[in-house]
Amino acid sequence: MINTIEWKDDIVRMIDQTVLPEREVYIECTDYNQVADAIRTMIIRGAPAIGVAAAMGIALGTMASQADNIQNFSQDFDEVCRVIGETRPTAVNLFWAIGQMRAIIQKYNSLPINQLKDKLKQRALEIREQDIAINRNIGQHGRQFIKDGDCILTHCNAGALATAGYGTALGVVRAAHEAGKRLSVLADETRPFLQGARLTAWELMHDGIDVTLITDNMAGYFMQQGKVNLVVVGADRIAGNGDVANKIGTYSVAVLAKEHNIPFYVAAPVSTLDLSLSSGDEIPIEQRTSDEVTHVQGKSIAPKGVKAAHPAFDVTPARYVTAIITERGVARPAYVDSLKALAGEDIN
Amino acid sequence: MINTIEWKDDIVRMIDQTVLPEREVYIECTDYNQVADAIRTMIIRGAPAIGVAAAMGIALGTMASQADNIQNFSQDFDEVCRVIGETRPTAVNLFWAIGQMRAIIQKYNSLPINQLKDKLKQRALEIREQDIAINRNIGQHGRQFIKDGDCILTHCNAGALATAGYGTALGVVRAAHEAGKRLSVLADETRPFLQGARLTAWELMHDGIDVTLITDNMAGYFMQQGKVNLVVVGADRIAGNGDVANKIGTYSVAVLAKEHNIPFYVAAPVSTLDLSLSSGDEIPIEQRTSDEVTHVQGKSIAPKGVKAAHPAFDVTPARYVTAIITERGVARPAYVDSLKALAGEDIN
Repeated sequence: MINTIEWKDDIVRMIDQTVLPEREVYIECTDYNQVADAIRTMIIRGAPAIGVAAAMGIALGTMASQADNIQNFSQDFDEVCRVIGETRPTAVNLFWAIGQMRAIIQKYNSLPINQLKDKLKQRALEIREQDIAINRNIGQHGRQFIKDGDCILTHCNAGALATAGYGTALGVVRAAHEAGKRLSVLADETRPFLQGARLTAWELMHDGIDVTLITDNMAGYFMQQGKVNLVVVGADRIAGNGDVANKIGTYSVAVLAKEHNIPFYVAAPVSTLDLSLSSGDEIPIEQRTSDEVTHVQGKSIAPKGVKAAHPAFDVTPARYVTAIITERGVARPAYVDSLKALAGEDIN
Repeated sequence: MINTIEWKDDIVRMIDQTVLPEREVYIECTDYNQVADAIRTMIIRGAPAIGVAAAMGIALGTMASQADNIQNFSQDFDEVCRVIGETRPTAVNLFWAIGQMRAIIQKYNSLPINQLKDKLKQRALEIREQDIAINRNIGQHGRQFIKDGDCILTHCNAGALATAGYGTALGVVRAAHEAGKRLSVLADETRPFLQGARLTAWELMHDGIDVTLITDNMAGYFMQQGKVNLVVVGADRIAGNGDVANKIGTYSVAVLAKEHNIPFYVAAPVSTLDLSLSSGDEIPIEQRTSDEVTHVQGKSIAPKGVKAAHPAFDVTPARYVTAIITERGVARPAYVDSLKALAGEDIN
C-alpha cells in the first residue's frame, strides 16, 4: 500500500514523511546529495528505511562516477559513503548498508566499472526487497506475543514508513491482525517530530487497524488504568548486551511498562544489531536542532529565544526489555548470548 | 510582574493564556457566564487561579442579581454557582471557592442585599490577595528542598499564571532563586495544551531563571543522565491519603523519578486538599475534546478522523510523593495523618 522508497528509472523516489498525513508528496532524487539531504531532514526516517536509502544513495552516487579504473572509482565510492555516513549518527542500519555496499566493491573489484555499478545497484534493490521479507518474518516471530483482544502501545513509527514496507514493530501488529486476532493500538504521538500522530496513526488507519492517538505523557495513565497489554517498539541500534537505542521517549515507556508489569518488546532486523558495542553507553545519540522542539510544523509554540534540548534518541537498558524480535527468531535475556546466536556468522 | 487575574471597576480582567506567549492579550468579563467560559476554554487555568476566577465570577454574577430578598438572592447565587461549578471537574479549588462564597451568604444573610453583594465581592478580592500570600509561604516552606546548583524538573505550569501570582511549584523555585541559590529548570512542554512550553518557559525567562524546554518524553532521558536533582509540580486535588491529581503526565514523571531515586515534591495550598476523599480513585478526571490532541494551536497534526484520547489529568499515588509542600508547612508520609494535621479546623 505505502511505497516508502523505490528505485525507478535510475531515480530514487520516496514519500516525503515531513508533510504526511496532510499531503502525500513524493520526492525524486537524481543525485546522492539529495538522498543525503532527505535522510538528514527526515523526509525519509526509521532505521531500516534509512539503510535502504543509504544503499540506494550510494548506488546513485557511484553510478554518476566518471572513474575509469577501480582506484578512482573506489575514491568516488568513499566520498559518497562519507557524505551519506554523516547524515545521522544513531541508526546503525545506515552504516550496515554502507558496509553491504563496500562488500560488493571488494567482491567484484576486478569487474569492469560499468558492471560493478550494476552490481551496486542490484545490491541496493536487493536490500530493499529483503527488508520487506525480513519484516514479514519479524511479524511471524512476534505475533505470538499478541493475544486476542490485546491493546498494544507503540512509540514513534516502526511501520511501513520506517522500512521498505510492512514495518518492524507494526509488522508484529500487522501479522497478528492478519492472523485474525482482534487488537487495538495506542499510538504515542512522539514529539517533537510527531511520527506517531502523523505516520503510525495514518498507516494503521489505512490498514483498518483500530488505533487511538495519545500524547506521550498519557502512556503512564493508560497503563495505570490497565488498558495496555504489551508494548512493541522498533530500534535504531542494539548493543551486544541488549541495550536498545530508539526514538526519544522509548526509555520512559520502558520504565513505565516495568512499573506496571507490562511486557516490553523490541522488534528489529538483525542489521540493527551492533555487537561491536558492549553496551548502549557507546551508542552515539544524535542531538538535533532545538527548533524542532520550539516549533510544531513551522509554528512557534514557545517564547522567542527559549533554550530547548533535543536529544533525538535514548537508550533503554536491556533489563527493561522482555524480548527482542528479529527475522531469525526471538532473543531473550541474557542478550549477550542470545543476540550472538541470532547474529551467527554476520558478526565475524 | 504577571497579572493573571484582577478585579477592576467591577470587571474581571485576565490574561488570555491560550494565546501566550505569542500575544499578551487581556480579556474583560462583565458577566459571570464569560468567566465560566474563560475557565472552560482555559483562558484561565491552574487550580488556584481557577479558584480565584470562580470567586470573582460569583461576585460578578450575584452583583447583577435583581433580587430584593435573601430567598431570591440565594436562588440567583445558586444558579451562578451551578454554572461556575460545571466548568471543570478536577481542580477542587473551584469547589472550595464556591464553598467560601456560600459561607459569606450564610454568615451575612441578615444584611441588606447590597451589603451582602459587597461582602461577596470583598471575599473574592480577599481570596485573590490571600492566594499570593499563600504562594509566598509555600515558597518559604519549600525552598529548603532546593540545593545550590540543583536542576529542577517541572511539569505543566504551576506558576504565577496558575495562581493569583508567584505560583506554587514555581513559587518554590522562585523562593530558592530569591534566596540566592543558583538553579536551573527543565520544563516539560506538557502536551496537549503546552503549558510548559508556552507559560512556564515564559514566566521563568521573565524572572531571569535559567530554563530549558524539553518534550514530555525527554524527562526519563535527562533523569537517566543524572541531570535532574528533584521534581516539583503543582496539584489540582489531593485526596486524604496523599494521592495527587495533577495535569496529565504528572504520574509518568513520578514513576520516572522513583525509578531514578529523585525526590518528587508537590506544592499546593491547603485549599487543594480534599480530605472528603479517602483516595485518588474518587477524584473525577476531566475528559476534554480530542481536538486538543489532534491539533496544535488550531493546526491539524494527525490524520483526519483519527480517534484520540484526552484525559486532562492523572492521579499520582501517594507512595510516589516525597512530600507535599503547603503554606502551613510540609506534609510527609503517612499523609492521612500529616495532611489532617495541616488542614486543622478546615476539615470540620
